[in-house]
Amino acid sequence: MEHQLFVWVDLLGTFAFAVSGAVAAGGRRLDLFGVVFVSYVTACGGGVIRDLALGAVPPVGLSDWRYLATVVLAAGMGIWARPLVERLQHPIAFFDAVGLGFFAVVGAHKALLHGHNAELAILLGMVTAVGGGVVRDVLLNRVPIILHKEIYALPALLAAAIQVMGQRMEWWVTLTPWFAASVCLAVRLLALRYSWSLPPVWRKAPPQ
Amino acid sequence: MEHQLFVWVDLLGTFAFAVSGAVAAGGRRLDLFGVVFVSYVTACGGGVIRDLALGAVPPVGLSDWRYLATVVLAAGMGIWARPLVERLQHPIAFFDAVGLGFFAVVGAHKALLHGHNAELAILLGMVTAVGGGVVRDVLLNRVPIILHKEIYALPALLAAAIQVMGQRMEWWVTLTPWFAASVCLAVRLLALRYSWSLPPVWRKAPPQ
Amino acid sequence: MEHQLFVWVDLLGTFAFAVSGAVAAGGRRLDLFGVVFVSYVTACGGGVIRDLALGAVPPVGLSDWRYLATVVLAAGMGIWARPLVERLQHPIAFFDAVGLGFFAVVGAHKALLHGHNAELAILLGMVTAVGGGVVRDVLLNRVPIILHKEIYALPALLAAAIQVMGQRMEWWVTLTPWFAASVCLAVRLLALRYSWSLPPVWRKAPPQ
Repeated sequence: MEHQLFVWVDLLGTFAFAVSGAVAAGGRRLDLFGVVFVSYVTACGGGVIRDLALGAVPPVGLSDWRYLATVVLAAGMGIWARPLVERLQHPIAFFDAVGLGFFAVVGAHKALLHGHNAELAILLGMVTAVGGGVVRDVLLNRVPIILHKEIYALPALLAAAIQVMGQRMEWWVTLTPWFAASVCLAVRLLALRYSWSLPPVWRKAPPQ
Repeated sequence: MEHQLFVWVDLLGTFAFAVSGAVAAGGRRLDLFGVVFVSYVTACGGGVIRDLALGAVPPVGLSDWRYLATVVLAAGMGIWARPLVERLQHPIAFFDAVGLGFFAVVGAHKALLHGHNAELAILLGMVTAVGGGVVRDVLLNRVPIILHKEIYALPALLAAAIQVMGQRMEWWVTLTPWFAASVCLAVRLLALRYSWSLPPVWRKAPPQ
Repeated sequence: MEHQLFVWVDLLGTFAFAVSGAVAAGGRRLDLFGVVFVSYVTACGGGVIRDLALGAVPPVGLSDWRYLATVVLAAGMGIWARPLVERLQHPIAFFDAVGLGFFAVVGAHKALLHGHNAELAILLGMVTAVGGGVVRDVLLNRVPIILHKEIYALPALLAAAIQVMGQRMEWWVTLTPWFAASVCLAVRLLALRYSWSLPPVWRKAPPQ
């Protein structure tokens, strides 16, 4: 039952990221296949990297039809409900924030499930959460947003850490993931609302 | 014997993709090492991703010397026969189309050989076929062609599906791969000849 | 003891690459997280690819806290000692050259340790050495330096080959890695000093 819960949380995150991916892809004149592909990579890329790092092959995002079906559904919505989505102010960012927390939790949980240490669980939680977005940005030929824009990876890191602590201390097992993901969502939305961001390390490029 | 056939089909695809990769790399003022590297990545990148996803490590493209030798030979031809290649109208596209079908077939076959389901076999067939080209385009710093240009990944998907059906239904085992690859080549060449392409999903970029 | 030696050599290389990564990231207005992330990817990316290809999961760069600690320390230095680093003429290149040899040696050694053949060991030695830099360049949205600039991957290939020969011929086991890495460093620095480079394969881009 517990395991089943994480599959559903994972599919919710997949849906959120796939919508976000489809919308991001829309700015680039991609064709229908391209939009679905970018949507899929955004949604499942982080999980695939996590599964490869855990040796949990084949990656569940590739072998479980529910992930592909979720992506196709979400990409369809991202395309079909486009006029609606456009009127929302930060649509990509919002769906990203929802998926971010879910994925961080699922990634950390899966690493612990495979018997690995807390460091790996926290790092892979973050990789699961931000990996898809990084691959999406690389495919769309731009510097990944997480490297220079608003605070993004830190809430994921926080959610993964809460999940790891929760499992180690045996907090209420059904509640921990929702709590961790909510903290992530809250921090991320606050960061967006108040434009929190880390300053660039160097103001001007050095002569190279 | 059956297994041996797939190795030869795989090497043929490797040769085709390596020539295509070398020619594509030529447009970018890369040095000799760079051309061979891009050629290798184009030819073996998809297969390496497939092998990682199957847990078939080390990836055969890295550990079997015949792949490296084929790439070096093909890259040499792509460089040496350049004036000839330039006079052909769509040289990159043609070699790509040949490799596309072979790789889709080999990828799907290998996934089934490892005992996985039809979905994974079809997806990994496509990944084997288009993965190398995606990595090539990422290295050459451009949006992958499969996301916005002519119909490209769909013939690979088709070939992988035919191969999976053929193996499930126990069609003539020696003929199925050639048939599947030929369908892929035909569809791809028709798409090129008549400029079939999926329309961009959105005509103009949204305000972001 | 022998194994322990390679861990230290690996951490030295990690330090060198992380400084180089932090400095390279500095030219792009990344925030603090972005610089540490790029630094980490530059330092550990090649090793992670190697470990995935060997099936040595989870990759040691992710699961062993010493790598992360080394990267954070080195990135801090790359940021804090920036004014100093800027006055050095080829700082990125120098730290790269140091890491290059160490990583080629460690990668080749690890592949042999897993019982694989010489070809795989030499290729994975090179991948370990140049992989992180390639991923760094892809993230920073530029064509990887190894594809078009000075002689870079060849010294790594040389070091990996020396290490493989040394282990096969049972040379003095403690000395071989230092010798191989020194040859790599020397060739690389000579290539930098005298601007050795392979010529671009084609002077002008073909009409495409």
